[in-house]
This record gives sequence, structure tokens and C-alpha cells, in this order.
Amino acid sequence: MIAVIDRDRSLKDKAEVVRFVEGRGLSVQVSETATESLLAVIGEAPSDLFGALEALPAVLEVRRDSPPYTLVSRAHRPEDSRVRVRDVWAGGKEVVVIAGPCAVEDRTTLLSAAHAVAAGGASMLRGGAFKPRTSPYSFQGLGREGLELLAEAREATGLPVVTEVVAPEDVDLVAEFADMLQIGSRNMQNFRLLSAVGEQPLPVLLKRGMMATIEELLLAAEYVMAAGNPRVVLCERGIRTFERATRNTLDICAVPLLKEKSHLPVIVDPSHAAGRRELVPALGRAAVAAGADGLIVEVHPEPERALSDGRQSLTPGGFERLMGELDVVAQAIGRRLTPAGVSR
Amino acid sequence: MIAVIDRDRSLKDKAEVVRFVEGRGLSVQVSETATESLLAVIGEAPSDLFGALEALPAVLEVRRDSPPYTLVSRAHRPEDSRVRVRDVWAGGKEVVVIAGPCAVEDRTTLLSAAHAVAAGGASMLRGGAFKPRTSPYSFQGLGREGLELLAEAREATGLPVVTEVVAPEDVDLVAEFADMLQIGSRNMQNFRLLSAVGEQPLPVLLKRGMMATIEELLLAAEYVMAAGNPRVVLCERGIRTFERATRNTLDICAVPLLKEKSHLPVIVDPSHAAGRRELVPALGRAAVAAGADGLIVEVHPEPERALSDGRQSLTPGGFERLMGELDVVAQAIGRRLTPAGVSR
Amino acid sequence: MIAVIDRDRSLKDKAEVVRFVEGRGLSVQVSETATESLLAVIGEAPSDLFGALEALPAVLEVRRDSPPYTLVSRAHRPEDSRVRVRDVWAGGKEVVVIAGPCAVEDRTTLLSAAHAVAAGGASMLRGGAFKPRTSPYSFQGLGREGLELLAEAREATGLPVVTEVVAPEDVDLVAEFADMLQIGSRNMQNFRLLSAVGEQPLPVLLKRGMMATIEELLLAAEYVMAAGNPRVVLCERGIRTFERATRNTLDICAVPLLKEKSHLPVIVDPSHAAGRRELVPALGRAAVAAGADGLIVEVHPEPERALSDGRQSLTPGGFERLMGELDVVAQAIGRRLTPAGVSR
Amino acid sequence: MIAVIDRDRSLKDKAEVVRFVEGRGLSVQVSETATESLLAVIGEAPSDLFGALEALPAVLEVRRDSPPYTLVSRAHRPEDSRVRVRDVWAGGKEVVVIAGPCAVEDRTTLLSAAHAVAAGGASMLRGGAFKPRTSPYSFQGLGREGLELLAEAREATGLPVVTEVVAPEDVDLVAEFADMLQIGSRNMQNFRLLSAVGEQPLPVLLKRGMMATIEELLLAAEYVMAAGNPRVVLCERGIRTFERATRNTLDICAVPLLKEKSHLPVIVDPSHAAGRRELVPALGRAAVAAGADGLIVEVHPEPERALSDGRQSLTPGGFERLMGELDVVAQAIGRRLTPAGVSR
Repeated sequence: MIAVIDRDRSLKDKAEVVRFVEGRGLSVQVSETATESLLAVIGEAPSDLFGALEALPAVLEVRRDSPPYTLVSRAHRPEDSRVRVRDVWAGGKEVVVIAGPCAVEDRTTLLSAAHAVAAGGASMLRGGAFKPRTSPYSFQGLGREGLELLAEAREATGLPVVTEVVAPEDVDLVAEFADMLQIGSRNMQNFRLLSAVGEQPLPVLLKRGMMATIEELLLAAEYVMAAGNPRVVLCERGIRTFERATRNTLDICAVPLLKEKSHLPVIVDPSHAAGRRELVPALGRAAVAAGADGLIVEVHPEPERALSDGRQSLTPGGFERLMGELDVVAQAIGRRLTPAGVSR
Repeated sequence: MIAVIDRDRSLKDKAEVVRFVEGRGLSVQVSETATESLLAVIGEAPSDLFGALEALPAVLEVRRDSPPYTLVSRAHRPEDSRVRVRDVWAGGKEVVVIAGPCAVEDRTTLLSAAHAVAAGGASMLRGGAFKPRTSPYSFQGLGREGLELLAEAREATGLPVVTEVVAPEDVDLVAEFADMLQIGSRNMQNFRLLSAVGEQPLPVLLKRGMMATIEELLLAAEYVMAAGNPRVVLCERGIRTFERATRNTLDICAVPLLKEKSHLPVIVDPSHAAGRRELVPALGRAAVAAGADGLIVEVHPEPERALSDGRQSLTPGGFERLMGELDVVAQAIGRRLTPAGVSR
Repeated sequence: MIAVIDRDRSLKDKAEVVRFVEGRGLSVQVSETATESLLAVIGEAPSDLFGALEALPAVLEVRRDSPPYTLVSRAHRPEDSRVRVRDVWAGGKEVVVIAGPCAVEDRTTLLSAAHAVAAGGASMLRGGAFKPRTSPYSFQGLGREGLELLAEAREATGLPVVTEVVAPEDVDLVAEFADMLQIGSRNMQNFRLLSAVGEQPLPVLLKRGMMATIEELLLAAEYVMAAGNPRVVLCERGIRTFERATRNTLDICAVPLLKEKSHLPVIVDPSHAAGRRELVPALGRAAVAAGADGLIVEVHPEPERALSDGRQSLTPGGFERLMGELDVVAQAIGRRLTPAGVSR
Repeated sequence: MIAVIDRDRSLKDKAEVVRFVEGRGLSVQVSETATESLLAVIGEAPSDLFGALEALPAVLEVRRDSPPYTLVSRAHRPEDSRVRVRDVWAGGKEVVVIAGPCAVEDRTTLLSAAHAVAAGGASMLRGGAFKPRTSPYSFQGLGREGLELLAEAREATGLPVVTEVVAPEDVDLVAEFADMLQIGSRNMQNFRLLSAVGEQPLPVLLKRGMMATIEELLLAAEYVMAAGNPRVVLCERGIRTFERATRNTLDICAVPLLKEKSHLPVIVDPSHAAGRRELVPALGRAAVAAGADGLIVEVHPEPERALSDGRQSLTPGGFERLMGELDVVAQAIGRRLTPAGVSR
């Protein structure tokens, strides 16, 4: 439920509406457009609140058909959010490209990958130190050592680092080294973890679960924001369908749909969707053309030797070619790639 | 199974290989690359054929891992096919846009739609005279009268006409008026119908079934080609998944995958995938960026009055804006939209 | 829309309501319960009809929330339908078992299979003479010769025959030999074919499409009934999902759901769902326990030599064991298998 | 990889094989059949291990095609496992029924539900104190207070208690009150949580993720067993598909398939699959007929007042009727329901 107030109303009038709602035991989030102040009632409102709010003199209108995710919704905040990761911005006119290996494997490989993606024009570095793996016997990541290597790679290249956190008890450790915390697909509905990353200040990259609906993704983002952290970037990475010719089915329509329903930046992971590097460039171009605010791409100096996801990782050369293609598509729709060393 | 022969071999040598295969009761299809003649054995080959072919002096190599769809496969025909519809070509450097109403409803509406899409730059006109509808009580199309109106719209605008045929016994009737026959999603595995359109000369627009895998789509195309008609254009139009926020889930990765596996042109239907006109432009741009050879888009002069699919039909103004967007994306990747009145 | 009239009202009063609706250009179907006459308005009613009907003195009540499939709905016909196939009844207290090979392959194999399933206690014989196959190069069935062999197997065993028809132009031919016409999964939305089997008198076995919703299945049945044939049996045979450990995912909940929404008999095909004979008995038992009115099962004298679906076909011995298991489950829920030579 | 040794071989010979594998840095799990000792190599074995093991004199045979989940596989342990929960056994001849409300709401309601399901013949009590909810604003459970109420209900009825744990840091707390720890669908791939419940001694009820394949479920169980806890019960609860007429699609074929591939007990949750109480009995009967070792069913004294899942909860009367139906189906296939107060 959103109460609309004329933006020119006095602060006192607005505060009165806030106090009224809070007096009912609910909380309120305020955002501003050019002409209106929007007071969103957080959570499930009692049925009589609608009429009571409408009766307040300062309230122009009450919108009851607002979606179940208040804080992430565009109804609540009409203009696009931008999320800063160190000196890189996600959202806005520029298209951000995050690249790097699936997992941090060893110092040499990671630094080689980091230099390669920096040279290719990436704005941020990705790499997993904690890997959620389907089998208990698969490589589970280097843990703290991996995080230290990521920090070293950041020093070496200047690229901010995004890496996955898989459990609430790891959040502090990962936050010590990372610039952005990734919530992976399998944890999109690990609600305790969502709250944990919501209670710390670093920005969050939230990947859609492979069988989660758009609405469930937005409600997962709401968990993070409701816990206090507004710095969320959504990521479409392919859903599970009957089609097995690709690893997942990239739901390209999620891009315009998420941007319609939410003010949060939306990026796309073409690597996990495709599952094969040959298909990644077409998906990357499509994502930018559809209006995505960025990409997250797997790149490995020697994909055939990767401990995981080698089949879908681009070579450094392939990444450089992709960046060239993305650049012209971005310009065609009036955007541009985040320039290396400029927005930073 | 494909037998590779040096292209410079004599016709006599090649004919000998053909006769050898045909002598085994199988048939053969020959295609040529710059350096090789490829003899594809059609259908399921007996297990001993591989060795027997390899032993023939003219045969350089026998490829056994060719896919189950021989005629449509790129293994058999490495270069892209182009399909001519009257004076418009699908495939090749230009991106073809087919547009028009879901169904032919009446003369005025159809002519209005046809003039609008022609003015907007469409290369072809779409419109259904026979409508496959989930309920027996829904509008089933105007039938022959609809076909006559389509022919009139072609006269009025110069645009070639594509329209759906739903049963083998209608093929002759529809072929009398149409320039291209559409096989709809629900009929993608109506094998008798596939053979019927394969036995006549007009080009065929084959839409992927909403439940069909990429391989099943290619095998459906193989039915048409095996019956004698090589003029097939494939169409991705969204698959059915757990996600219901959109009408279907556009499998954008089908575009590069189909073009990798097959030489046939591939177009995309963003309207049926999205189910809402607001989402159509993003999907259209994504399809072109992913490498599609064209689009088929629903446009209606008054969408809110349409008898079917009004919610997903663009207005004439919306279509014109979309064409502008498609044009710049096509140019960004080194292609261009089929220019009005030029390729025609 | 369904108008309810007191059953004791005079025929004249009832006829007046019928005439009123028909006078509006709509048609009507009447069914009777113990206390009510139900007049279903077929098709999409104009918005003002509700009030007009309510105003008629004979009308007790008008139900507007009836589903889009009038004739097949339980709202229209509260008691279970029974469908007779020669001297076997589907629906009612007895559980009917249809068995036989996937395809008619040759005389010896078919007669062997027919005698085996008759000995095992099957009530009907299945076997395909026209096979819809994904690849144009796979065995497509023996056609008319296969139908003749089925008729011979019926003579030899006394079992009525159900076989698939794949195109409207084949209906007359198949009807000449078969006792029940099967519409296969891939043709569930071949609306022309649905109408064609609706215009002839033999009972129809309608299989759910592998990606069709329950509502779409019921609307497909409505096509048959709207064309004049009320003798329809529905068949759940597994849907396509992300899980590939089985050929399809048997939607066991379709059984109680279809019986809740429709009066038509519902049978289950465990063979196509499982894809492996080892899993067929558990699915067969589950179907009977869930309330299915019968099963259709693939049985082959030598499954490893079958031209299609051998992997999922039971041996004669396996079928006999299954029948024993089904019998006790049926009795546990107050039903019994159709006894051999009794209901016939 | 599994090395087979004659069971009559000396302990010294067997120990030698174990030491050989452990000397390679791998671990080993031994199980016994009537005639063989099976030494399973845990995790991914190096490629040369196969030959090295085959060369050992005590080794009869090495099976390399064993599945990726060693400990849970039937290849490793041919006979059925039984899992004891206090004095109730899951697995074996008896069919166990777990029942209770979705969530612990308050003392009165819980005790009322517990007495009702005990009277109806349930063997165990279910109820959630920690509820994973899609929206941050939905009721999240009573936490510790809910656990205390569950313990009180156990005292009052004698029924062992199963309740969900949603985060590793809660395991100790929940284990203090519960008799069995439930891992919910959304946490099936919360690998840290799986390991945590694997490191404590209480039995674990592992629900299949709504998007998880059979193999992924078995690998999730392998996480628990690999961490040291062999007491795992698997639960099929419906998967997410395109069909929305039911809340989920119960994959009934998972029952025979899981029992073929694994020695662990398999139970079924018909409530979450159906989503409507009217459909629960048919699914429950089907599950028992398919060979499930038990059911977990939602029952609420006043479903229409439930804070969650009321629509799918049985009334006490409905539960009692269901138990009567399950009893006869179980007996039909040679099993019986766990008798109240007997196996306890």
C-alpha cells in the first residue's frame, strides 16, 4: 500500500502521515518523485488502513494494488536505482561487465584471468572462493585463501571484486575481502542468508534461482532491502526447463519485465544459461539489446584446464571479441560500456 | 552419415558413389562447399555402410556423427540457405520483418493493418484465416474469405503474404492465395501436415512447438525437406515453462543454436513469447542482436478491439518505433533491415 | 452458463427456455439430475444473457461460473459417464485394462501379443497402425495392413481394438477396422482431427498432450463432444518437465482433478510416462489407487526386438504379474478389474 | 567405484584393501551382503585406481559404473535401510504416517492438532517452528517457543516430533527439542546446512527441492551421509512444472525410482503437491500403492483459520478417513500402517 502526498506539502504534514502508520505498528519507507512523496507501508497492512489513510487531509491518493514487494518495486520508487561498487556504478546509462573465472583455483591462474579481463575492458572481477557444488566430492573452493587471492587480484588490476557467500556465518569473512557479495542461484531462497547480507553494508548481487519466478526473485530482493541494505543488483542467469540442448534457458524477457516492476539494476549471466562458450556472445549481445544494465561472464585463461565450468568459459581472446560486439550494440541503443579506468 | 568427396573429382566418380548408396536401397542428397562434395545418406543407414563407403576410392572421409536430421543440418550444407518469398529473401545479410494482425477479422481492419505495416517498413504481411483455437467456441477465422482479403491486401501494398494452414486438406486452398505457408506451434508435430506442405512448392514458415525441443523442431523441418521442399524458415516463438509472468518463455538461445546446427534461416516471434505489447520491443531487439534473420510481429490498428491476441499486438505507432530500434541494432552487428521496395 | 430448472417442471416450460436461448443464436445442451434439469448454453454467451435467463419464471438459478468446457464438465452433468467399446464399458465400478504392442509390426508378433494380453486378463487390445514419429526416417506403421491385422487379432481373441488415427482423411479408414479411435499426445490440439472424430460414432480415447494443461485437455475433449460425439475417454500419459530420469513425469494428480471437473472416464498410460518397464507396475498400481477408470499398457512378446518403445513394454509374464497387483489394489478401494469374458 | 570382495575372506585381507585405498588419500565405506563385502571408494577416484584395485588378490571385481552418490546408492548397500525415530521405524514393512499442522501457531491449536492426528493413527507429529517464507512480511514461525510447544505436544501424545531447521546455526537449538530434523525444499541444496545436519546424530527428513532432479536429491542425501549421519529419509513433495491446476506436480514415479537407486526410505508429501485438501486422499493412496514407505500430511483442527497452507490441510475427520483408505491399500500390497502404540 502506497500513500501519495503532494511533494510540496510541509514536512510536518508528511511526518503526520508517517506517525499515523507507525502508530498502527507498521513501518514506512518514503521516496520522492518530481511531484510526489510516496509513503510505502511495509508488510501486510490491515484491511481498514486504506480508508483511514485516504481520510487524512495530506494524502492525495492511496494505491492498494501495489505488489507484495514494496521496497524493490517501481511503484514505490519510479526512477532507476544505481548501485555503487567501489568506484563502479551499476545502473544508469553505462553497461557494466563483470568477468573472471568460475572459481579461484590458484594464484597464477587468478592473476592471469584478472589481468586478461582488465585488459579486455571488464569493470569488475568475479571468482568463487566458496563454491556450492551438487556433489559433496566436487571441488568446494579455496575458502579464505581464495578470498585473499581475490584481494590481491584487485590490488593488481584495480578491479572491484564480487564473490559468492553461501552461509550467514561466512558473511563477515567474505565482506572483509570482497566489494560485492553474490548470492548464488541455489541460495536465492536461503532467507536467513538474504537477511544476513541485508544487515551489512556491501552491495549484493542476487542471482535468480533456476526455478524461481520473477516474483520470487523480487521478494528475495525485498528480504535484503527489508533488512536494511538497498544496494541490490538482480541477475537473470537462465531457468530450468524441458530443453536440455542448453544448460539452462535464458529468460531474456526477465530483463524488461524486472525493469518494469523494479527500480533495481538488472544484469545477465550468459555463461550459466548457455553452458557452452560458443553460445555466450549471442546471449551477451541479446541481453544488452534487451536493456540489461550489465553482464557477468566467465573467462578463464585456459578453459580446458578449469576445475569447473570450463566448457562455458570464454578465453581471453574470446572475451575481447565479445566486448567489441557489446560496445556497438550498447551504442546502438544509446548506452555505452563502462569505460576502463573512467568511471573508476 | 555423410560421405565427403574431393570437389574436383569427376562427375563419373561421384555418380559411382551415389549409385552405390542407391543400390543399397537408400537415397542420397548432394551439396557442395568450396572444396568438397558432401553426399548425405538420407535416413537410417545399415551398420556396415560406413566401412563400405570408406573403402570406395573416391571417398575422402565418412562422417558418422551427423545428426538425425540430414537435410536441414549444417553438417550437410555448411553455408546459409536463403529462402525467397516472392521478391523478399529470408536469410542472408538482411533482416526481414513480417507484421500484421493475429487474425484476418474484416476487410477494413486488414487493409488498415496492411497499410500501416507497409508504411512502417515491414517486408511481408501476416494474418490468420484459419485459426487453431484452444476452445471450440472461440473465433476460428474467416477461412476462404480471409484468404481472399489477404490477397487483396497484397495487391494494395505489394507485401507478400504468410498465413497459417492447419490441415493437409487445406493446403491447396491456402496455397492459391498465400506466398508462404505457416505451420503453427500446435501443428509442429502434425507430421501429415508437414509432409503435405513439403509436397508443394511454396516456402514454409515452421514455428517451434511450445513444448518441442530444438532437435524436434529440426526433425519437423526435416519432414518438410524430405518430402521435397527445401524452402523452410524456422521460427522460435517461446516455450512453455513454469514462469507465467509472460505468456511463454522466449528461448533466445535457440537462435544461435539453430544457426549452428542448421543452414536454414531463423526468425523470432516476440509477440507470442511476451504476451504483452510492452515487452515486445526488448525481445525484438534481443532477437536481432542474437543473430536472428527476421521477426514476425503482431500489429493491429486498434489492439483493444482485436478478436484475438489484442494484448500482445503493437499499435501502428509502436511498430514504427520498433522498426527504428531494430534498424540501429541490425546495423550495429553489420546487417540491415530489408529495405522497403528495394529487395522487392 | 448453466440455467437450472426444477426437474418436475413441464416439458413445455423447459422448451420455452431452450427456445429463448436458441432465439439468441446460441445452442443448448440439456442434462438431468435427480432433481434438476440443467440447460447448458454452448459457447460464449453475451453479457446480458445472464439477467435475461434469470428473469424467466421457469429458471431457478443461473450458474455463470461454469468452466469454458460445458459439455465435458461435471457442472453440466454431475454423474459419471460410461463409455461402451463394443461390449466393454469404461467408467463405472470396473477398471478396464487396455494392452498390446506399441505398433503393429507383423502378423505373428501381433497375434502373439494379443493372445498374451487376453490370457493375462486385458479387456481391450491396443496397437498402432499409423505411428506419429519424431523423425521422418523412423518406422511409420503398416497403415491399412496393420488395421487388417488388428481386426484379425480381434477375431482371434474377442478383444475390442483401439488404435490411433493421425489425420482427418484417415478417420473413415481406421473406423472401418477399429472399435475405438485414439488421438495421440502430439495431436491433442489438432483441432480439425478432433472435430473429425467428433463427427463419427466410434468412441474416442483422447491422450493428454505432453505439454498440455488439464484445462486444455478438457477443451480438446469439448471439441469432440461439440462435434456430436459424447463417447470420450480421457488419458493421462505423463507431461514433459525438467526431470529426465523418466521419459515423462506422470501427473498422477490429473486423475482426481479430471474426475472432479469432468464426468468423463479417465485412464492412465504408465508405459509412456515411465519409459522403462521396471517402473510401470508401481505407476499402474498408483493410478488405480488414485481412482483411474483404467490403464493402457504396452506389452510385447519380445520387447528387445520391438521396432518402437521396447524399453517400456512389459513381457507377457510381467503383464500377468501386474494384473494380479492391480486386482488387489482395485478391490481395496471397492472396485474390480473388468473380468475377462464377463462384461463382454 | 566399488571393490567387491568375497565375504568369507579374512578380515586381514579386507583390511589390506582398505589400507591400500586410504594410502592413496581416499576414504572407504564398507557394507556387507549375504555373499560379498562391498568397499566403496568415497569421492572422485583417480583414473589409475581401477586397475590397481583389480590387481589386488582379494578383489573379485571392481565396479566402475557406480553412481556419483556412493553412500546412498543401492549399488553400495543392496538391502533397504531402516531409520529409527525414537521408537518408530521408517522403512521396512510398515508404512509410517507423519501428520500435523504446517506451522506451530499457538499452544491450543497445536495440542488440538496433535491429539487429533494421534487419535487418527499417525505415528509422528509434524509442525514448523521456523518457516521459510517467500515474502519477508509473512509469518516466519514462533522459533524457540514453537519448539517448546512441540516438545509439550510430544509429551501429551507420545508422538515423536519432526520439524524444520533452516540454518546451520539453528541445528543445535532444534535438535534439543526435535526427534527428526526436516530439511525443506528450498534448502535441499543449502549444502552447509546439509553438512550441519550430517554432523549431528538425529535422523533427517530430506525433502526434494521443487526444482531438483532425482540425482540432485540423492547427491543432497550424500552430503548428509558423507558428513557422518546415515539416518536419512527421502521425501518426494511435488516438482514445479508448467501445470498450475495443482500447486506442484507430484512426481509419483520418483518413488519406485528412488527405491531402485537408493537403499534409503522414501516418503511422500501429498499436501504440498496437491495444494488443495480435496486432492490429498487420492495422492496419498497412490503413494502407498506405488511403494512409498510413508506419508507426511498436513492436518489442522480449523484449516480455514490456519496462518499458512490452510487450503491444503485436512480436517481431523478428513485425516481419519484417509487413514482408513491408506490401511486397505497398504494391506493390498502386503504392508500395513505402523500401528498406534505398537511399534512405539
